[in-house]
Amino acid sequence: MKKLLSRRLAAEFLGTAFLVAAVVGSGVMAERLAGGNVALVLLANTIATGAALAALILTFGSISGAHFNPAVTLADALEGALTWAEASGYVPAQILGGITGTIVAHLMFGLPAISLSQHIRSGPAQFLSEFVASFGLLSVIWGCSRSRSIAVPFAVAAYITAAYWFTSSTSFANPAVTIARSLSDTFAGIRPIDVPLFITAQLFGALAATLVFRWLVPGLDREPSKVLLAHGSEIANAEISKSAAR
Amino acid sequence: MKKLLSRRLAAEFLGTAFLVAAVVGSGVMAERLAGGNVALVLLANTIATGAALAALILTFGSISGAHFNPAVTLADALEGALTWAEASGYVPAQILGGITGTIVAHLMFGLPAISLSQHIRSGPAQFLSEFVASFGLLSVIWGCSRSRSIAVPFAVAAYITAAYWFTSSTSFANPAVTIARSLSDTFAGIRPIDVPLFITAQLFGALAATLVFRWLVPGLDREPSKVLLAHGSEIANAEISKSAAR
Amino acid sequence: MKKLLSRRLAAEFLGTAFLVAAVVGSGVMAERLAGGNVALVLLANTIATGAALAALILTFGSISGAHFNPAVTLADALEGALTWAEASGYVPAQILGGITGTIVAHLMFGLPAISLSQHIRSGPAQFLSEFVASFGLLSVIWGCSRSRSIAVPFAVAAYITAAYWFTSSTSFANPAVTIARSLSDTFAGIRPIDVPLFITAQLFGALAATLVFRWLVPGLDREPSKVLLAHGSEIANAEISKSAAR
Amino acid sequence: MKKLLSRRLAAEFLGTAFLVAAVVGSGVMAERLAGGNVALVLLANTIATGAALAALILTFGSISGAHFNPAVTLADALEGALTWAEASGYVPAQILGGITGTIVAHLMFGLPAISLSQHIRSGPAQFLSEFVASFGLLSVIWGCSRSRSIAVPFAVAAYITAAYWFTSSTSFANPAVTIARSLSDTFAGIRPIDVPLFITAQLFGALAATLVFRWLVPGLDREPSKVLLAHGSEIANAEISKSAAR
Repeated sequence: MKKLLSRRLAAEFLGTAFLVAAVVGSGVMAERLAGGNVALVLLANTIATGAALAALILTFGSISGAHFNPAVTLADALEGALTWAEASGYVPAQILGGITGTIVAHLMFGLPAISLSQHIRSGPAQFLSEFVASFGLLSVIWGCSRSRSIAVPFAVAAYITAAYWFTSSTSFANPAVTIARSLSDTFAGIRPIDVPLFITAQLFGALAATLVFRWLVPGLDREPSKVLLAHGSEIANAEISKSAAR
Repeated sequence: MKKLLSRRLAAEFLGTAFLVAAVVGSGVMAERLAGGNVALVLLANTIATGAALAALILTFGSISGAHFNPAVTLADALEGALTWAEASGYVPAQILGGITGTIVAHLMFGLPAISLSQHIRSGPAQFLSEFVASFGLLSVIWGCSRSRSIAVPFAVAAYITAAYWFTSSTSFANPAVTIARSLSDTFAGIRPIDVPLFITAQLFGALAATLVFRWLVPGLDREPSKVLLAHGSEIANAEISKSAAR
Repeated sequence: MKKLLSRRLAAEFLGTAFLVAAVVGSGVMAERLAGGNVALVLLANTIATGAALAALILTFGSISGAHFNPAVTLADALEGALTWAEASGYVPAQILGGITGTIVAHLMFGLPAISLSQHIRSGPAQFLSEFVASFGLLSVIWGCSRSRSIAVPFAVAAYITAAYWFTSSTSFANPAVTIARSLSDTFAGIRPIDVPLFITAQLFGALAATLVFRWLVPGLDREPSKVLLAHGSEIANAEISKSAAR
Repeated sequence: MKKLLSRRLAAEFLGTAFLVAAVVGSGVMAERLAGGNVALVLLANTIATGAALAALILTFGSISGAHFNPAVTLADALEGALTWAEASGYVPAQILGGITGTIVAHLMFGLPAISLSQHIRSGPAQFLSEFVASFGLLSVIWGCSRSRSIAVPFAVAAYITAAYWFTSSTSFANPAVTIARSLSDTFAGIRPIDVPLFITAQLFGALAATLVFRWLVPGLDREPSKVLLAHGSEIANAEISKSAAR
């Protein structure tokens, strides 16, 4: 028995809003305090983002699966773990949540609600970075989903923590977050004109990892309940809950 | 069978004292060493606070639930997981613990036991920050409480680690800690006159999250034992213990 | 059936050696690289120490209990979880291990094997700091030992990570480590003449926490197997192992 | 029933590639942003590497055991947990993966695909550092493998996080990674001429730890399935999976 879709969409909205607020807000805070040392800004930004991800996936995982990311939702639908109808609700909830996160972050720091970013992020190195970042993110999700699903929140948070530093794009790896960050002329921003390139790379990266893991972990795509486990479906969590409560 | 209330109050007192000592003490240490780089001070303050929270919730969770926070205690009472009589013992224990923590931190660094803070923290952006910070904190607690209660110490610590950076108020999110920090004219301080605004925002944020999660996770409020699970009641922990020992 | 004492002593020796090597070595590395910013040195020192502690307790916990600390060993013996004969083997193994750790760290950085520290650490604020640091450490151990023993490695590591910053002494909290650090005239050092004050404060802090937790968690001292669980005895671990392997 | 070797080799290739990309890429990013503060560069490098390791071991552990390291593979073969034929497939997959990781990292940052490092790393202190680093790494693996196998990803990541700081060589501890880093004239590089010394020290360190743990944890070498557990064999993970799903 699935949770009501309205509750799941609310969870995706709230989770993505908090995720983007963490990304954008920590960038503003760090830039204000770091006295011009960009490494220190990115370090604070990284720690805030990684920690927020872990907390938010643990919080909303049992409600909606805690995707917060259209690339994850589409890959999940591709593997049959989510219907396309559900996915078509998830994606707008994530995008709206992300934009709300930007606005809330701005207001918390006394900035205008929205400001178009002028942060240039373009070129083949950035494209490759987003492809690799998203390939890795989906690899982590599919790799952990079968036998170590309880580890997903920690694995995803750890992966993004690393990827902020090892890609030249600082690893957006998320179309909804990319759109939301285009509306913030702060440290975490991205020029609106650069958004399509990022999203294209992200979707290709996610697709590539999904295909590789179809071969690498055979049977994954034919066992939807196992896949769901990775994202904290109600059924899987009820099991975990029972196990924890025994 | 509940633990004796005196033991639970002692746990709330001790835990809140250590939590505030960590917040205030690490601020003093970091400011002394950082040579004026405020981002570095906040980074050290963040790491110390997040790590202390994880350790203290793991330590005292099985005794008192490890609230250390009147906003959490009141929300818990609202959901029926704690009687109002118990809550009326918890809150003063937390406030006294917090003040003790400030004093101990000051003495460990050779400072006067108490000093009224002159750190201005006011205005609508700060109010919104504390509302959001507390909304998020209670979301994490309610979200993890049903199916992933073992994760609560890590989720709360990770959330506060992030929230220190993504709110302009550095996320106090705790009335007892706010009062205690008003007695410290150091990095972590807050002017006594700004305390009421912070506490108001915190209580509204906690209330809002509690109402949202009533709808988001139905049944949570009608299963007190499940709620307790989130905070490490004796019963729940005995179960976990049995499970771990098998 | 207990493990052979020789193996347990070897584990205490090796674990304490690695712990001290991490503390001393990371201090040397950080001081060489930080360009005079002491906050950055302590941050690197903190992260290395906390991470080493988690790894080492996970590694040696199932062999010897992973005390690496005479204050923990004596408190354990006081609670009947270890015989005094065993404790009298543990303590010298820890002290020798610690000294070996200092020597190895020095040699890894091309320094003389031993050098008496000239780092002054004295006065009542330092005494109070070590008392509080050790009180907190033993609180974490006793608090986690009954119902959340699997969390001990993480809780102890998180606690020390925080305590490095919230005490003015940077939380030695360990007589064997204190002795070993007196033989290193580097960032982590302590003047040999200041060692007795530190050790006294540490033992008092550990004793105080042990007495408080006798009252706070009644029954702890009368269930040695439960206490052992906290420190990873063979029996407890066999159980966990069985549970994990099912 | 073992997984197909081709899948396991692909997992070793992919995992080592991502690991090296994280090591090299984060070094480039950090050096570009840190304004000359080498401690900050190493801190970012450390956090990225540790986080990547945790995520990658969780991701690929259930497929190939997530060695990513010829020293680990050879030690595993020595203990009978892997056949020598399997090991002779693993090692080249790791080396090729590592080199691919360097190339991908370079391309993500707009650098030439390969550049021979000029970073001098030689002398007895470096040799001792690599011996100690690898001795510790294998100790962590063998120590966690029997009773706490679920902790291996976290323990290994925490250990390497610490070892980056407490060894003067920044703890390569991995022949495949060492070779890959010789092809990068960036922060993480090592002169090709210094590679043999590093690899020799790594293999001796791994061998020494393996022999010590044969005595320290008797029975480890005679229970291959238990050893495999540490590295996430299919059988072991199926068990964990069943346990998680109950």
